[in-house]
Amino acid sequence: MTLAQVLFAPRAVALVGASGDETKNTARPQRYLHKHGYAGKIFPINATRPTVLDLPAFKTQAEITEDIDHAFIMVEDVEGALEDCGRKGVPLASVFSDGFADAGAGGAARQQRLVARARELGVRLLGPNSMGMINLTGRVALSVNAILEMDAPPAGSTSVVSQSGTMLGTMLSRGAARGLGFSKMVSVGNESDLGVGELVELLAADPETRLILLFLETVRDAARLAAGARAAHAAGKPVVAYKLGRSKLGERLARSHTGALAGEDRALDAYFRDCGILRVDMLETLIEIGPLLEGRRPPDLTRAPRVAVVTTTGGGAASVVDRLGTAGIETVTPGSDAPITDLTMGKKSASYGAVVGELLEFPGSDAVLAVVGSSAQFHPRHAVEPIIAAAKGRAKPLAVFLTPQADESLALLAQAGVAAFRTPEACADAFHAFFSWKSPQAREKGNPGEWPQDIPIKGRLNEIQALTLFGSLGVPVVQSAVVKAPDYAHTLAYPVALKILSAEVTHKSELGGVIMGIASRQEFDAKVKSLARKGEPLLVQHMETGLAEAIVGYRDDPVVGPLVMVGAGGILAELYNDVVLHLAPVDEAGARAMIAAVKGFAVLRGYRGLPKGDLEALARAVVAFSRLALLAGRPVCEAEANPVVVRDNGVVAVDALVVLKEA
Amino acid sequence: MTLAQVLFAPRAVALVGASGDETKNTARPQRYLHKHGYAGKIFPINATRPTVLDLPAFKTQAEITEDIDHAFIMVEDVEGALEDCGRKGVPLASVFSDGFADAGAGGAARQQRLVARARELGVRLLGPNSMGMINLTGRVALSVNAILEMDAPPAGSTSVVSQSGTMLGTMLSRGAARGLGFSKMVSVGNESDLGVGELVELLAADPETRLILLFLETVRDAARLAAGARAAHAAGKPVVAYKLGRSKLGERLARSHTGALAGEDRALDAYFRDCGILRVDMLETLIEIGPLLEGRRPPDLTRAPRVAVVTTTGGGAASVVDRLGTAGIETVTPGSDAPITDLTMGKKSASYGAVVGELLEFPGSDAVLAVVGSSAQFHPRHAVEPIIAAAKGRAKPLAVFLTPQADESLALLAQAGVAAFRTPEACADAFHAFFSWKSPQAREKGNPGEWPQDIPIKGRLNEIQALTLFGSLGVPVVQSAVVKAPDYAHTLAYPVALKILSAEVTHKSELGGVIMGIASRQEFDAKVKSLARKGEPLLVQHMETGLAEAIVGYRDDPVVGPLVMVGAGGILAELYNDVVLHLAPVDEAGARAMIAAVKGFAVLRGYRGLPKGDLEALARAVVAFSRLALLAGRPVCEAEANPVVVRDNGVVAVDALVVLKEA
Repeated sequence: MTLAQVLFAPRAVALVGASGDETKNTARPQRYLHKHGYAGKIFPINATRPTVLDLPAFKTQAEITEDIDHAFIMVEDVEGALEDCGRKGVPLASVFSDGFADAGAGGAARQQRLVARARELGVRLLGPNSMGMINLTGRVALSVNAILEMDAPPAGSTSVVSQSGTMLGTMLSRGAARGLGFSKMVSVGNESDLGVGELVELLAADPETRLILLFLETVRDAARLAAGARAAHAAGKPVVAYKLGRSKLGERLARSHTGALAGEDRALDAYFRDCGILRVDMLETLIEIGPLLEGRRPPDLTRAPRVAVVTTTGGGAASVVDRLGTAGIETVTPGSDAPITDLTMGKKSASYGAVVGELLEFPGSDAVLAVVGSSAQFHPRHAVEPIIAAAKGRAKPLAVFLTPQADESLALLAQAGVAAFRTPEACADAFHAFFSWKSPQAREKGNPGEWPQDIPIKGRLNEIQALTLFGSLGVPVVQSAVVKAPDYAHTLAYPVALKILSAEVTHKSELGGVIMGIASRQEFDAKVKSLARKGEPLLVQHMETGLAEAIVGYRDDPVVGPLVMVGAGGILAELYNDVVLHLAPVDEAGARAMIAAVKGFAVLRGYRGLPKGDLEALARAVVAFSRLALLAGRPVCEAEANPVVVRDNGVVAVDALVVLKEA
Repeated sequence: MTLAQVLFAPRAVALVGASGDETKNTARPQRYLHKHGYAGKIFPINATRPTVLDLPAFKTQAEITEDIDHAFIMVEDVEGALEDCGRKGVPLASVFSDGFADAGAGGAARQQRLVARARELGVRLLGPNSMGMINLTGRVALSVNAILEMDAPPAGSTSVVSQSGTMLGTMLSRGAARGLGFSKMVSVGNESDLGVGELVELLAADPETRLILLFLETVRDAARLAAGARAAHAAGKPVVAYKLGRSKLGERLARSHTGALAGEDRALDAYFRDCGILRVDMLETLIEIGPLLEGRRPPDLTRAPRVAVVTTTGGGAASVVDRLGTAGIETVTPGSDAPITDLTMGKKSASYGAVVGELLEFPGSDAVLAVVGSSAQFHPRHAVEPIIAAAKGRAKPLAVFLTPQADESLALLAQAGVAAFRTPEACADAFHAFFSWKSPQAREKGNPGEWPQDIPIKGRLNEIQALTLFGSLGVPVVQSAVVKAPDYAHTLAYPVALKILSAEVTHKSELGGVIMGIASRQEFDAKVKSLARKGEPLLVQHMETGLAEAIVGYRDDPVVGPLVMVGAGGILAELYNDVVLHLAPVDEAGARAMIAAVKGFAVLRGYRGLPKGDLEALARAVVAFSRLALLAGRPVCEAEANPVVVRDNGVVAVDALVVLKEA
């Protein structure tokens, strides 16, 4: 039996702590397995009762003579139950019990011990704090999720991995009401062992799964999830994430809820894009987007997306189109400069399907939006069948928005595999996610060279050390020299800048530790006197001038790993947070795309007739900087070149900061 | 009979162009009036049939012997039908027929003639291009809206005015599915006569209406709508708008659809706020927000709003709270620093209602959010009754979000008047709209003084004229002098700036028409030679320096009327569009709030230890500038002081632009 088999399709399950009291949560797995048609064997484990809900019960797993594929643990003594699993040779245990990493530092330590012991015993773990697994296509409802009170939830080809057990229920329940079914649904709980990434890998290989949805509060193992997403991409299965923690408040809540860092939202955006994971903004989009994606590949667009729109209601279409516009999506109409094709009431309704077909064939559009008014409510077949017929055999993405309450029409469309949206906002969100979807990026394996000699690999580098490191990676850096008492001699041409040389002083200029624009040796000598304390060495640099300033940064993010950042320099750009992130290392095309997304660089792109800056050189500098991610052992925690002076010909880093991981 | 009576509750209606063919749109009003229980008299007007759908038909209205309160015109010859109304003394005609302002310039001219004639005849008009009016509480379904195929749509105390007829249907249909009913629903079409503003006034006075919702594609009469909104506020009836045209694409679509300007979105935001109209971002919020607002007054908060949250599902609560965070809303928990009160599954469910009650009493919160998981689907009464009981008699706003598909729970809450939301996004949107809600602002009636002598009141002012005008309003302006050949004498202290003096040259500095920082008379003489063409006079100004630059602007917007603008100066601020708008005139408190919302002014508020600027003086300058809106006849179309130099003590406008309305 493979891991996928014992997880999704166990032949025999042990329910450790199964209750005979139907009102208790711990009675649910047995009830639900029965209710939803489980064909395998069920062994309730209950220390005090001979039977549990009409099945013979066992005091321990050891009493069971047959093999157990999957144990579902609901008792407080998880450790004892795990030992039983080990003795019995159970390959997988799902742990519903909580009190582990979800419960502070003590719980986290308990969890570490549990996982270590499970590894020794050869038992894989789902959870703790997991609500279990629901396999709708395989009829295995091994879960305490109360949503399983539902009768006959529909099955489908979409699978879900969720860090919130209850939100699995939300998706199942709301999908069912819309005619959208699921295959596997897994509540990962604390992810002590089996995590989101490994589950995505399993689902990428699962023949019943064509699309993978993720409900995330955090990312605990970014590398594994990235690998899973790449495997899913290779298998032609889109992966879609809804992730909480967009706001500081959301981050704080996610942290209090999962005991893990939620991660900075923009870093996660960069991460998802890099792995080829689509990200949706709204919860309902996650439920509804499936048919828009199934069987499709990332559009990898490098220009504004174009949607052709047909509607029987101007206001209804406008409610979607207005939001498409805010997402930078354009509309096109064949042979017309009208923004949409408006088939007003009654006048041309017979030809609605023909228009949809025409738009799906129109080479000028990347996708089609069909909006239908009240007929969707009262004449579902009449309203949606022409759309379904037009969609058949045509590859272009099609989304339908129905303005009234039209459950039957939604179900008909779902059944036919046509994407349909209940709200204009989710519809626009889905288009936005789809058009932003990129293939997973190839990881450039450039050679960063050796760590420069004489540069410490612990602590915080001083500026000259940091500049030397940047230079070794290929970043153009300012001519600098360390000058010392008594004469502070140097050979740099004037004008120069003079700085305190210390790894401790990060805001040197605010503390008066920087003197700019020293024009001559005389002036230099005078300034040296004012700056040098106790004969400390000072840093002298050639004064660089250019058209504008940029900031280039790097950090080894605890959640998503190495990131490179580029942004407009200066205090205003800082206030507007005008920076763009990308997983590091980045290649030149990626760096160019980052630079193109920085608003403030408009001043270097010819805005208002200003002279153009050498943004190609900046892109090369960003690429070079991002090679910090390739250094053996990734010793750098955080680095920044600020400012990087951008000239009409070339760029140069004039200030540098490096913080190493080891103190 | 008042206008409200003949519009909402006519005793007798004429259906001009009523068809006997049930499949036609023109047969609908008669069918719908019957179907939905109209108790008044119906007179079909049909030139060729003796009966229409079992009622005797008339060739013209003249043949009818009884009084007609309201004619519903569906024929192409609208003009002929209007003459009939005039002869018959019908006080109000709703015009479904299109081909007026919705159909280009020719149609717009036809509409003008129609309205002029209607005024002569004493007939008020709803439309053209209106789908009619639905009065659910009064059982008058005088509309072609196909949504009326519905059986027994619920009645309520919310009324709707919509520029899209079909979207009225959307609201009715979706509301009904949720147990939310309506009172009056009016499709205003082209608003040739009766417009949104007058309808809001009528609804403000309507005893059956407690809340007014607007679906807008444009604002055609901002002053009238403002008056309506103020009347509604005075009557204690909240007014909520959903307005399209947030994106350029949406604007373009709205314009193509309504034949009117959609208006700049930020200007409309300022306008709605000023009139006390709440604005929602999502369509579903418009339908769902009612119970959160009914009977409530604007919170007029001047600090971050605080919501107390209770939930039975962490993920469900987080999906709302995360979005509250992005809207700047905080969460609070009594006696705890936890972000929310999380009653995990089963552990404390009995006390859910008690917690809701406690949070509603908690003085530290402005509102309460209650999130319920799967029990809302399977045990609706058990899940929502404790909430309903806790809400009873407590004034604090309460919103409920149910994570699963839970139609019965939603209906129970609707019935009890408790606000409930189907999606986390609409729930957060509603809170955001509620907390942003301000009482209508008092219009300061300051005295702007007289238009300065010697300043033309047509065309474009040159800079010295513009500065003089600003100065006359109380804006501190730079010392300036016009200097002329041959000696270009002046008495200003150096350093000075020298500029070409022309009303035509708006981007003087880009064209080399400005020389800054002239330090002495000698330098001045040299520069004069380089700048003066053909002995033209030049403008000399004292060089002003300060801590940062601001931009202050004014425009008489064609949609919302006079607006004052303040923003951070400089090219980056321009790129980031860091400006804030307010209806003009603005008072000092309003100007202070505007300034506080400009991000770039952080550099004047002590950011990174920088010296603080005199933002009070800037606020006074904004107030003075906004008095342009009070000048008799409002001759100014557009004005800008850019930059306004902000010092540590005072501000001064150093460049000025004024465009007058008359060319």
